[in-house]
Amino acid sequence: MKERRLAVIDLGSNSFRLVVFSWAKGGAYPWWRRTDEIYEAVRVGAGLDAAGELQAEPMERALETIELFAHFCRAAGIDDVRPVATSAIREASNRESFIRNARTRSGLKIEVLSPEEEATYGYLAAVNSTTLSDGVALDLGGGSLQLTHVEDRCAQDARSWKLGAVRMTERFLAGETVKRKQLKALRAHAREELASAGWLTDAAADGASLAGIGGTVRNLASAAELAAELPSFGVQGFLLERGALDDLVERLADMPASERGAVPGIKPERGDLILAGAVVIQTVMEIGDFESLEVTEAGLREGVFYSTLLAGEDPPLFDDVRREAVCNLAGQYHEDFTHIEHVARLSLRMWDELGEAGVHGSDPRERDLLWAAAMLHDIGTAVDYDDHHKHSRYLILNASLPGHSTRETALIGQLARYHRKGNPSLGVYSKLARDGDEELLARGSALLRVAEQLERSRDQAVRDATVLVDDGQVELRLEADEDVSVARWGAERQRELFQQAFGKDLIVTSELL
Amino acid sequence: MKERRLAVIDLGSNSFRLVVFSWAKGGAYPWWRRTDEIYEAVRVGAGLDAAGELQAEPMERALETIELFAHFCRAAGIDDVRPVATSAIREASNRESFIRNARTRSGLKIEVLSPEEEATYGYLAAVNSTTLSDGVALDLGGGSLQLTHVEDRCAQDARSWKLGAVRMTERFLAGETVKRKQLKALRAHAREELASAGWLTDAAADGASLAGIGGTVRNLASAAELAAELPSFGVQGFLLERGALDDLVERLADMPASERGAVPGIKPERGDLILAGAVVIQTVMEIGDFESLEVTEAGLREGVFYSTLLAGEDPPLFDDVRREAVCNLAGQYHEDFTHIEHVARLSLRMWDELGEAGVHGSDPRERDLLWAAAMLHDIGTAVDYDDHHKHSRYLILNASLPGHSTRETALIGQLARYHRKGNPSLGVYSKLARDGDEELLARGSALLRVAEQLERSRDQAVRDATVLVDDGQVELRLEADEDVSVARWGAERQRELFQQAFGKDLIVTSELL
Repeated sequence: MKERRLAVIDLGSNSFRLVVFSWAKGGAYPWWRRTDEIYEAVRVGAGLDAAGELQAEPMERALETIELFAHFCRAAGIDDVRPVATSAIREASNRESFIRNARTRSGLKIEVLSPEEEATYGYLAAVNSTTLSDGVALDLGGGSLQLTHVEDRCAQDARSWKLGAVRMTERFLAGETVKRKQLKALRAHAREELASAGWLTDAAADGASLAGIGGTVRNLASAAELAAELPSFGVQGFLLERGALDDLVERLADMPASERGAVPGIKPERGDLILAGAVVIQTVMEIGDFESLEVTEAGLREGVFYSTLLAGEDPPLFDDVRREAVCNLAGQYHEDFTHIEHVARLSLRMWDELGEAGVHGSDPRERDLLWAAAMLHDIGTAVDYDDHHKHSRYLILNASLPGHSTRETALIGQLARYHRKGNPSLGVYSKLARDGDEELLARGSALLRVAEQLERSRDQAVRDATVLVDDGQVELRLEADEDVSVARWGAERQRELFQQAFGKDLIVTSELL
Repeated sequence: MKERRLAVIDLGSNSFRLVVFSWAKGGAYPWWRRTDEIYEAVRVGAGLDAAGELQAEPMERALETIELFAHFCRAAGIDDVRPVATSAIREASNRESFIRNARTRSGLKIEVLSPEEEATYGYLAAVNSTTLSDGVALDLGGGSLQLTHVEDRCAQDARSWKLGAVRMTERFLAGETVKRKQLKALRAHAREELASAGWLTDAAADGASLAGIGGTVRNLASAAELAAELPSFGVQGFLLERGALDDLVERLADMPASERGAVPGIKPERGDLILAGAVVIQTVMEIGDFESLEVTEAGLREGVFYSTLLAGEDPPLFDDVRREAVCNLAGQYHEDFTHIEHVARLSLRMWDELGEAGVHGSDPRERDLLWAAAMLHDIGTAVDYDDHHKHSRYLILNASLPGHSTRETALIGQLARYHRKGNPSLGVYSKLARDGDEELLARGSALLRVAEQLERSRDQAVRDATVLVDDGQVELRLEADEDVSVARWGAERQRELFQQAFGKDLIVTSELL
C-alpha cells in the first residue's frame, strides 16, 4: 500500500490555499485524508472589478505565494500538483500573462476552471460527502450561486446565478442596518432569477433533498448549532433546518452589520456578507420546499481531489459514502482488520438474530451504526491504550464521518466509547438524539461488549455465536474449535448490561466443532 | 525501521495481565508504546495463605487464562513473550507443577521473579519514567513495600518490608471504622520496621527526592488531584504533596471502610485497602522528610519491557527521560522530522538571543518546554488537519510525557495549542500553573508562531533568524538563499502577539546569502 499525495492549489479571489491530500489504495481498507494546508490571504482580485485586470501589487503577492507553494511541494516531495484558478483570475483580461509568469517563476501550470467545471467539482464534493441522491446540490460563493440538479447521484443540470453573497450584499444590503423592504427586494430578486430552473420548483413535489457546500453554509450551520446549544464537533452532516435558518435571518437582520461577525459560529470576516447569503439560501429552500439542508465541510478542493482519487469511475463517485467514511477512518488507524471485522460480524449476528426473534425492532439504520462502531471501536489505541474507548470517540467526532448526520456520528462515538467500561448513556449528546436513542445505545453497547469478550484471544477462536431466545432468557451458543472458557466467562460478565438493554437474562454455552 | 513487539505477561496474585509493547529503533526518533492489553481477574492466590499451595479451581482459571494469552500472542504474531510471576506463585509449594502444566498447555515458560528481581524492575520503571536521580523509589504492593535507594540514577540498595496494603489492613485496620489508636499503632509499626534503612533516615539531610509506583500510589494521586479540582489527564508526573496526603488520610480515616471506595479517584476494589497504604506512604515521607512524591503510571511490566528495550545499556536506563518522552511521542506521529526540527531550531534561536539581550529571564526549564512544544506542535494532524493545534494538545495530554510534571505537560500542551489561532491563555490549566506561567505561554506561543511562519514553505528556505534588540523594537533578520517575502509577511503578522509577549515591536528583514 504505497502512500500517494496530491496537492490541490485553489487560487480564489480572496485567498490562495494549498491542500495536500494523501491516500493509499490497494489494501483491505484504502484510505485518504487531508494532511497539510497552507493559506494566504492574497486578495488577488483587489481592484479587479474597476480595472478589469489584475493589479500590479496583488499580482506580485499572488506570484510570490505561488512560488512559496511550489517550494513547499518540492520540499515535501509532492509531484502531483493541481493548481486551479476560479472567477477572479478567469475574468481578468491579463490572465494569460499572469499564468505565464506563474509558470516561469514556479514551474506550476495553472488550470483555469470554466464555470461548468467549477460547478462539477462542487457537485462531486457534495455527492461524495453527503447522503444526497435525488435533489439539489447548492454551492454559494461570493460572486455566484451554483445549483446542480442531481438524480440517482448523477448531475442532470448545473446552473449558475449571479446571486453570490458579496454581490447581493452590495446590491441590496450595503448599509449598516437593514430594512424589511430591502430584505423583501433581495428575496424577490432571488425568486425571480431562480424561476428559470424548473427542477428547483419541482423539487417540492418530488420529495427531493438539498445538500450545501461553501463558507456561508458552514458558518450558518455553525451558528445554528451553537444557538441550539448542541454539542459541536464541526458541521459535517449537520442538518440546517428551515426554522433555524429563519430564526438566524431574523436575528442577523435585527443587528447592525458590524456586529454580525460576532455572532458565535460566524467568522468575523464574513460578518458583513452573511445576511445576504442566508437570505439567498432561505429563498432556495422556500422555492424547493426543502425542510432542511445537509451541510458538508467538503468543497471545490475536495471535488478536485475526488476526481483524481476516483479517476477510474464515471462519474467519480464513491459507491457508498457512509460505508466509505467508516472504512476510511478504520484504514487510517489499523493495519490488521481481522479483529475488528470479527467483532463486527459477531455483533451483527447477535443483533440480527435478536431482531428476528422480535427482541428489538430491526431498524437497518441501527444496524449500520452498530457496524460502524464495531469497525471503529479500537482506533483510540493510536492515542494511548489507557482510556482508548474514550480516545476512539474523540477521533470519530473530530475526524467526522461524511454521509452521517451529527446525531449518527455522535451515536457511533458513544457506542465506541461504551465498548468497555462505564454505564452507557448519551450524556451531552442527548441533545442531538431522537426518542429511543438511549435504548439503541444500550443495545449496541451490550452487543459490542459481548462480541469483544468473545474475541478476547483475537484469533477468532469463537467462530460464530448464535442466539436462542426463550421467553425471559437468551442463550448465546458459541461455536469454537477449542476450549473457549475464558471468552465465555468474559461474555457472561456482561449479563447485567445485557439485561438492562434487552430485558432478558444472558447465558453463554459453547459447543466444540 | 522495523516494528518489534514484546508481550509482557504479569501473573500477579489478584489478576493476570498481558501487555503488548511495540517499538521501532533505528530511525531518527525511535519510539515505543503500549499497544494492547488483556486483563483477567484470576485471583490465583485465593486460598493460598491457608493451604500454602495453589488451589484447584484458581489454578484451572489461571491455566485457561494463560492459554488464552498464548492464543492471543500467536494470533497477533508476537514471538517475544515474557511471562513473569510474582509473590503468589513464587510462594506456593506446588509452583513447579503449576509451571509445568502451564508450559504443557500453553507452550509458555513462566519466569518466577525473586523479590530482588521484582524490586529491580520496579526501580527501572521509576527511574525511566520520572526525574528521580538521587533519592528513593517506592513500590507499594499488597504484600510488601519495596524501597530502592538511588544515587545518580543507579540502584544502591533495595529493601523489602512486609508492609503491603493488604497485610497492614488485616493487621491494623480490619474493621469498618478506624480509631486513632489503630492508626498510631500502624504508624509506629511502620516506623520501627523502616528504621533498618539508614539511607531513608538520611534522605532528609541529603535533599533527596521520592518517586512512587503501584496502584495505591496512583489511586492516592488521582484522589488528591480531584480533591484539589485540578484538570485531570492521568497522574503521570503528578506531585503528591505531603499536606495533600495528610488531608486524604484524615478524610479516609473519618469514613467507614465500605465508603472509601466511593472517594473520587479511588477504585472501588481498593476502597478497603487504601487507608493502610496511604499511612505507610505517609510514614515513608515523614521519615525521609520528603515534601512530595513524584507519581508515575509505569510499573513492573514497564520495568520488564525497559530491560528488553534497553538491553544494551547497563543499567537499562534512558539517557534523558524528558527528552526521550518528547522524541518518543514525535516519533509515533511523524515520519519526516525536518520541519519540526527546523521550527524547534528557529524558536530556540530567537528565544536564546532574546534572553541574551535581557528580554526574558533565560530559564532553562522554559527553553525545554518550548523545545518540546516545537517538536510536538503538529502531531494533531494525525487526527484531522482542521483544529490540529487542539488535537496536538489532546494527544500530548492523553499520552503523557514521563519526566514532566503535570504542570509542564499542560504547558507543553497549551504551547502546541497556541502555535496557531487564538489568544494564548492558560485557561483551565491555570490551576496547575505557577506565577509567571501566563507570560511563559505568551512568549513561547509568539516564538512558535513566528518560527512556523518562517517555515511555511517547509523547505528551510529561511535558514536562520537572528534578533537585534534595540530599545522598544526587535528586528528579526532572516537569512535565506532566495526570496522569502511570504515568510516575512507571515512573521510580521505575528506582531501583535509578539508585542503582547515581549512588550516590543517586531520588524522582519531578510538578507539573501
